[in-house]
Amino acid sequence: MRIALVGIGKIALDQHVPALAASPDWELAATVSRHGRVDGVEAFTDIEAMLAARPDIEAVSLCLPPVPRFEAAQAVLAAGRHLMLEKPPGATLAEVHILRDMAQAAGVTLFATWHSRMARGVGPAQRWLAGRRVTGGRIIWREDVRRWHPGQDWIFDAGGMGVFDPGINALSILTAILPAPVRLLGAELDVPANRQAPIAARLSLSDGITADFDFRQQGPQTWDIELATDGGKLALRMGGNLLELDGRPALGEDSIAGEYPALYARMAELVRSAAQDVDLAPMVLVADAFTLGRRFFGPPFEF
Amino acid sequence: MRIALVGIGKIALDQHVPALAASPDWELAATVSRHGRVDGVEAFTDIEAMLAARPDIEAVSLCLPPVPRFEAAQAVLAAGRHLMLEKPPGATLAEVHILRDMAQAAGVTLFATWHSRMARGVGPAQRWLAGRRVTGGRIIWREDVRRWHPGQDWIFDAGGMGVFDPGINALSILTAILPAPVRLLGAELDVPANRQAPIAARLSLSDGITADFDFRQQGPQTWDIELATDGGKLALRMGGNLLELDGRPALGEDSIAGEYPALYARMAELVRSAAQDVDLAPMVLVADAFTLGRRFFGPPFEF
Repeated sequence: MRIALVGIGKIALDQHVPALAASPDWELAATVSRHGRVDGVEAFTDIEAMLAARPDIEAVSLCLPPVPRFEAAQAVLAAGRHLMLEKPPGATLAEVHILRDMAQAAGVTLFATWHSRMARGVGPAQRWLAGRRVTGGRIIWREDVRRWHPGQDWIFDAGGMGVFDPGINALSILTAILPAPVRLLGAELDVPANRQAPIAARLSLSDGITADFDFRQQGPQTWDIELATDGGKLALRMGGNLLELDGRPALGEDSIAGEYPALYARMAELVRSAAQDVDLAPMVLVADAFTLGRRFFGPPFEF
Repeated sequence: MRIALVGIGKIALDQHVPALAASPDWELAATVSRHGRVDGVEAFTDIEAMLAARPDIEAVSLCLPPVPRFEAAQAVLAAGRHLMLEKPPGATLAEVHILRDMAQAAGVTLFATWHSRMARGVGPAQRWLAGRRVTGGRIIWREDVRRWHPGQDWIFDAGGMGVFDPGINALSILTAILPAPVRLLGAELDVPANRQAPIAARLSLSDGITADFDFRQQGPQTWDIELATDGGKLALRMGGNLLELDGRPALGEDSIAGEYPALYARMAELVRSAAQDVDLAPMVLVADAFTLGRRFFGPPFEF
């Protein structure tokens, strides 16, 4: 099946292009980007032009930032093509509801991806937790924004989500593995005095779960989820790629394809079965944190 | 059918108790409140005690503020009773999703009310707009917080929603009458330096619609929605109770029961047909505004 990639930036070149090159399901047939391109692939600068020129392309994958993404997504669905969205699937919940309704009406697949859910420990963690009752837990998701988003001022602007840009990955894992739905009880958001979006956040969730998100972590980076249950303890480390059950490593050394290859394999499966996969639970928790959260203003932040 | 009212404060005494007294469908059979009570009605101070003592009560209406409401709502549904919620239906979107799933699993009715949707112009406005295309519009929702919420500091606290407490009424009307779903494009939130929640907000919505919410309006209060379409102009004034089409009044002087009697009539209809009515569109727009909105900090506010 032929697919086009829209938005040829860092995430596209680092993850999407190699995943598509290795995919048995997909052929990267076109790119759309103002500046970026991929060798040997037809390059467009306008999405409408690509959709008109290439009716043979059945699916489109969007790697644009959340804010400009909606217009492109709407164009893809209006042209009757299947659509895959990077996380988060939009700048607002309302727009993703609109896209979901459009995709259903058009009879095409919409896949709102959460790449961290494809980390190798997530499926085993979900199966282990099924039937157990979670009694408490903590998420520690601390990384250095200067290392992962150097100079990207948009991430701290209104709508940029700040530390929830990585934090939503933790929430996408949590909402996938918990045996019962989780809700936000309260949140504290640390916002630099010269920015709009938080640089750190502490969440209180149901089932005694807390989350500690921080964008100021130097040295080793931490992406851990630890849960206590009525039937033992579970920990996911390294963003979901290491699993510990009752303190012991629980994954073999089997070679797993990686998160983005798994996303494209899932997209192929969804298209073949004419299905949707749009789970907004991680985004709902973030919107709830922005709505309910108490803001604390701290020192200005500069990259 | 017998109903219990939980949270006997100003809104309960002003609106719910008279609406129930006049209702042909409902008998107010119990109240639950720490301090309030209603003459001639059995009074409880604990909701679990009421649910245990009065298995004959089939439905419960909650008039509690959003933050403490979830625990009470969960207790009602766990006891297999029908549930009616004041607006907004919760402090977070995630908790309302959980309540909806609980109600469906229990086979009872959940009605997340939006009282402004029962204003007399709303139904006619919705019918007039069906089949027309909206080309622009503006919401002006300006009231005096000192008059309507005197001394209620919680409204400006985290989770209190500030000016979105009345503004969500406008959004509940807008999302009911528009012929197509609306999304938020951007928002500016004015937050007093000593508060967490905005005292004013300006929203930019799709279809060229803007909203101007302000809690600092002295003198005449304004609750207007004006829409331009490809087939003429519509205005709803007085919170949806006056309708103008192409500048001319369009409602007769027919006596309408009022918003809360209409809510209880609708609740009776939902219970009889074993149906749900949980539309989160107004709350989604508010959460989107809190997530995407740019905050401006202004002078401190004191009541």
